[in-house]
Amino acid sequence: MKFNNRNIYISDKAVIGNNVKIGDETIIYDNVIINDNTTICNSCVIGEPVNEYYSHINTYENAQTIIGNNCLIRSHAIIYAGCNIGDNFSSGHRITIREHTTFGNSCRIGTLCDIQGYVSFGEHCWLHSNIFVAQHARIANFVFIYPHVVFVNDRYPPSENHEGASIQNFAQIGAGSVILSSINIGKYVLVGAASVVKNNVEDYQVVAGNPSKVIKDVRDIKFANCNNYFPWPLNFTRNMPWEKSGFYQWLENNPQYR
Amino acid sequence: MKFNNRNIYISDKAVIGNNVKIGDETIIYDNVIINDNTTICNSCVIGEPVNEYYSHINTYENAQTIIGNNCLIRSHAIIYAGCNIGDNFSSGHRITIREHTTFGNSCRIGTLCDIQGYVSFGEHCWLHSNIFVAQHARIANFVFIYPHVVFVNDRYPPSENHEGASIQNFAQIGAGSVILSSINIGKYVLVGAASVVKNNVEDYQVVAGNPSKVIKDVRDIKFANCNNYFPWPLNFTRNMPWEKSGFYQWLENNPQYR
Amino acid sequence: MKFNNRNIYISDKAVIGNNVKIGDETIIYDNVIINDNTTICNSCVIGEPVNEYYSHINTYENAQTIIGNNCLIRSHAIIYAGCNIGDNFSSGHRITIREHTTFGNSCRIGTLCDIQGYVSFGEHCWLHSNIFVAQHARIANFVFIYPHVVFVNDRYPPSENHEGASIQNFAQIGAGSVILSSINIGKYVLVGAASVVKNNVEDYQVVAGNPSKVIKDVRDIKFANCNNYFPWPLNFTRNMPWEKSGFYQWLENNPQYR
Repeated sequence: MKFNNRNIYISDKAVIGNNVKIGDETIIYDNVIINDNTTICNSCVIGEPVNEYYSHINTYENAQTIIGNNCLIRSHAIIYAGCNIGDNFSSGHRITIREHTTFGNSCRIGTLCDIQGYVSFGEHCWLHSNIFVAQHARIANFVFIYPHVVFVNDRYPPSENHEGASIQNFAQIGAGSVILSSINIGKYVLVGAASVVKNNVEDYQVVAGNPSKVIKDVRDIKFANCNNYFPWPLNFTRNMPWEKSGFYQWLENNPQYR
Repeated sequence: MKFNNRNIYISDKAVIGNNVKIGDETIIYDNVIINDNTTICNSCVIGEPVNEYYSHINTYENAQTIIGNNCLIRSHAIIYAGCNIGDNFSSGHRITIREHTTFGNSCRIGTLCDIQGYVSFGEHCWLHSNIFVAQHARIANFVFIYPHVVFVNDRYPPSENHEGASIQNFAQIGAGSVILSSINIGKYVLVGAASVVKNNVEDYQVVAGNPSKVIKDVRDIKFANCNNYFPWPLNFTRNMPWEKSGFYQWLENNPQYR
Repeated sequence: MKFNNRNIYISDKAVIGNNVKIGDETIIYDNVIINDNTTICNSCVIGEPVNEYYSHINTYENAQTIIGNNCLIRSHAIIYAGCNIGDNFSSGHRITIREHTTFGNSCRIGTLCDIQGYVSFGEHCWLHSNIFVAQHARIANFVFIYPHVVFVNDRYPPSENHEGASIQNFAQIGAGSVILSSINIGKYVLVGAASVVKNNVEDYQVVAGNPSKVIKDVRDIKFANCNNYFPWPLNFTRNMPWEKSGFYQWLENNPQYR
């Protein structure tokens, strides 16, 4: 239904793996590698040239761009040259990922996300719709970011001091929040919806408000039917690598995520 | 000027009404019905297959998708399979409407809106630009939602408990607001710009702030030149069905909207 | 790499200057003028017809649309008929600029910006990603607006009284802020991230919060290594016209920006 080989352009210098599907009107530029069993839907641009292309059009050479195995990139995505996208990545529509951004395996990003370049994501990060991430943010593993969150990187704009935020393993950032430059958000943190985070947040804290304030420890969130709702991996297990073993057993076997 | 029949793809299993215009590079997938006098502009995708398509590519069948009469869908729209869009619908550019979303007649949605699926809208809802509506929201009639509003559906994320908001007739949601999961917003409510709504809002209340607080009754908003500015249908009549009769007379004749 | 002349449509009534590059699948409608040395990337629409086109399809005539010299418009842009874009303009991807919007020279706008029409920008304005500007805003010179800022134009919606904001020279609007209708923001103002501006802001003020409050005078922001950090043109000079002369000398020579 979707793959009719109409108006596709693939550079001679691109390398396309086995069982790769490419949608109509998609463009694959120089020095792109697409690994096996990956699907790129219609009207995408993979390996978009960076600014220097326009000023040095005769000598410009595209940086290598890698898309992993078993990825699903939905329509109208733009992924710049120099990105390295891990296996099992999936995206919504109209995403923009600027140059030299890296994603570990099994990440997802939603429709309209705009990743500004030189950003690193670990494994199993899930970004919902329309998230803006300024350059140089470093986002660890199993970080979930909800719709319309904005990460900035310049405390007293305009300046030349761009410092991205750092988000640690298992942190959750609620919808519509704004995270200021150079902020560190600790492990297992829960940032409530529409928070404006101007100061570092310690491991396990729940913060909310504009500006955000500490509300409680995430482990103190109790429900009538569940005494250990947080840290969230105890209760949210579907499609998670600890689905069968339980979280603490899995963490013991995978100490890199502690 | 706009309809030159270049690179259009229409499935054999789609049904196209009389006097329908379809823009260049638009794709109409299986089991889409487009009713009479409707215009779909360039670079749209109507009947986009849902997730199951990618995992069951040989057996997948697209759900029926209906676009009403006299609609105008501007360029770069993506409307998923299973949606049912009423008559006189109009949209801005680059909208995304996910599966099994329904719109009553005479709705409008703005550029970049992202409706996540399984959402229902009544009649005459107007959504401005770049609104995000999480799954399962239920939005009644004559609800106007201003730019960059976000509706979420998960109170303690991540969880498996997704409950959409419910918005009643004639409510107005100001720009940049965030509406939390399972919230009920009553009739004729006015949510001020940039509000964060964490609790239910009663009929006729005006709320504002982060978190939002009740400011007054909407009927107490007075202006020097107008003692009955709200409820808004008393003063805003252009293109409304009560334009000729006056609002209260119309409401008496149309008790379903009370 | 990017310009292969595939599926380009250019109206006979468009005027294309010297050394203009046009990307694949781009559409240039009637009465568009593109000046010299400008690049329009792939999948753009320049001179998009306004609403009246659909209701008067046989008699409609597109207003003149002008794109200046040395512009770089990245992919998937939509620029409506009647716009006048100055020289040295550059844009990110998927921008939407509605009818009768004007940009002075040397402006930049980021990915996903949505300018609603009848908006005026002076020279050297920089808009980052995903900014929404309602109709009738008037934005002066050297105004920088950070990601996800929303400008609205209707104080008690819905109404017929649409009044855009006015932003004066050298003002800075932090990410995620919402600026209400008819607000005036003075010269050299710094609006902190995620502010909700409901009242006018005097020259040189720093404001922040929801609703925003005056924090200090921008000239009182001091750093250990810099006593005169603001007004910002004293410290931010890269690519600015005062890069060589220093700001105050330049301002004396260019009194129109005072």
